[in-house]
Amino acid sequence: MNTNEFDNRLKEAAGEVEEILRRFLPEETGLQREIFEAMNYSLTAGGKRLRPILMRETYRMCGGTDEYIISCFMAAIEMIHTYSLVHDDLPAMDNDQYRRGRLTTWYVYGEAMGILAGDGLLNYAFETALKALKCLEGEWEGKASGGACPGGGKPGRKFSDSEVLALMRRIWQALSVLAGKAGAGGMIGGQAVDILAEDGNPEDMTEEKLLFIHEYKTAALIQAAMMVGAILAGASEEQVADIEKCAKNIGIAFQIQDDILDVVGDSQELGKPVGSDVQNNKQTYVTLKGMEQSKADVEKLSREAAAILDGFQGEHTFLKQLILTLIHRSK
Amino acid sequence: MNTNEFDNRLKEAAGEVEEILRRFLPEETGLQREIFEAMNYSLTAGGKRLRPILMRETYRMCGGTDEYIISCFMAAIEMIHTYSLVHDDLPAMDNDQYRRGRLTTWYVYGEAMGILAGDGLLNYAFETALKALKCLEGEWEGKASGGACPGGGKPGRKFSDSEVLALMRRIWQALSVLAGKAGAGGMIGGQAVDILAEDGNPEDMTEEKLLFIHEYKTAALIQAAMMVGAILAGASEEQVADIEKCAKNIGIAFQIQDDILDVVGDSQELGKPVGSDVQNNKQTYVTLKGMEQSKADVEKLSREAAAILDGFQGEHTFLKQLILTLIHRSK
Repeated sequence: MNTNEFDNRLKEAAGEVEEILRRFLPEETGLQREIFEAMNYSLTAGGKRLRPILMRETYRMCGGTDEYIISCFMAAIEMIHTYSLVHDDLPAMDNDQYRRGRLTTWYVYGEAMGILAGDGLLNYAFETALKALKCLEGEWEGKASGGACPGGGKPGRKFSDSEVLALMRRIWQALSVLAGKAGAGGMIGGQAVDILAEDGNPEDMTEEKLLFIHEYKTAALIQAAMMVGAILAGASEEQVADIEKCAKNIGIAFQIQDDILDVVGDSQELGKPVGSDVQNNKQTYVTLKGMEQSKADVEKLSREAAAILDGFQGEHTFLKQLILTLIHRSK
Repeated sequence: MNTNEFDNRLKEAAGEVEEILRRFLPEETGLQREIFEAMNYSLTAGGKRLRPILMRETYRMCGGTDEYIISCFMAAIEMIHTYSLVHDDLPAMDNDQYRRGRLTTWYVYGEAMGILAGDGLLNYAFETALKALKCLEGEWEGKASGGACPGGGKPGRKFSDSEVLALMRRIWQALSVLAGKAGAGGMIGGQAVDILAEDGNPEDMTEEKLLFIHEYKTAALIQAAMMVGAILAGASEEQVADIEKCAKNIGIAFQIQDDILDVVGDSQELGKPVGSDVQNNKQTYVTLKGMEQSKADVEKLSREAAAILDGFQGEHTFLKQLILTLIHRSK
């Protein structure tokens, strides 16, 4: 796939995610209209929509075909990602007034509504993912998924109890992985360690702690995205474990590259000043391990991730290119 | 049941909830130990544990017998209730330094950790409720529930696919109700309207808005508790709708009684000054409808709730007394 084709495909995929998200946005109605507005304000603020795209590409690579079920989870993970940004931006956290060139949620709606909108989004992520089980309603004939049968069967065919059960088991496992990776044992844990490190002495930062933050704060949700895709498609336990490793590499390599770009990047391309980490006296992967080692580690992590994907028989040209582009970006 | 028996039974039930909660507390381990500590600090702060008690009593009244499945949901709803308090206490919300005689979470762990601990608890509530589906693991022979079979079957007996499916459907419905009543369409929506009303002109308060706040901020989670109990026990749709109505009455009557006690209560018994609503120029049910009407409405709501319970054949002496005690409390 040449760069042009890839860029078009990525743009198309992001557009499809926007369309899916729009279908799941809460209706801005009732006396509590403003909380729905605040939630939708942040959900529709744009962004690369990488997690839902990674989820669906992994789902397809593993043979998944049902668009309804995967859509529920794609919307859910973007809601979780969005709530984490809404809370991150709060005055008591990073105190940001702008994100993606737009005023942040708390700055527009007030701090209390910023907290509640984040809570609402996290809660709504689970409400949305649970909709994947709508196939339990009706006659199991694909009504909920609008004709396309859950699990990829033919519309109109009635599923046997054991087929339905197998599907339920997948959805339950996907829900559990999503919740686990998003929680205090995952992303929230990474945010907590990051916050405590920022408040502490920079000298106390160790390689172990920095890798923990990169793995939990960033990689955990990428793991959730790709693992949910694999699980819902019916991948084996071993395959899901491979995907978990692959996504961990991607997340960590992405963050090391971030640290590298803060030193060698082009501030115009990055859209932010270079060298801010050094100025802020912040320990990064580069200050801890040196530039050469950092570049070598990104290379190694990225090669491993690509090799794991190549172990899958399903089509993954776009997915692989996406991952390599993400890691080796210059901005 | 005389008052003494009732008090003992209530104390015993609260103790059992403490024990169940303890089993589900996150382990305070790993680099992110402090976030787990902050979550457990608030979860173990005591309280009446009313929602889990209401849930289990409704479950039993409707014929439920499996302790494992209901325990997961009992812990989950208390986690949701607790997270809502942790976030309510934040400086940007009610700015409270004390709750139940203890320093609040944000005051002990800092504001950022207070936000993250609340997020962690909400997320953990879903992680915990999803554990009810552990019965999907193993051989469906009650392994997950420690001998007692999910759904109340005999240990050792293998469930048929259709029995398992019926149980799964209940758990899914329970998860959906829990998520829906806790979210922006439920409790969070009530909190949002309450916050906006507090910031606004007291003259703008209407009966509709006040009832909305009482219903969504307070009654929604009581509805979740009792409806989840009924659903997991296999109650019919009609019965679940009755329970929803009953719990709505309880929540609203409870809040009106709160407004009444702020005028006629004994400040020593209440443990807080009487008349604070009037002093704060706050519109309450009593200022809007008058004392006599308020008392009459509490009476009517409470009678209706009791009548609904009496429509159930299952044992509900304690549950009914609990509800009437809650509504007609003098503190």
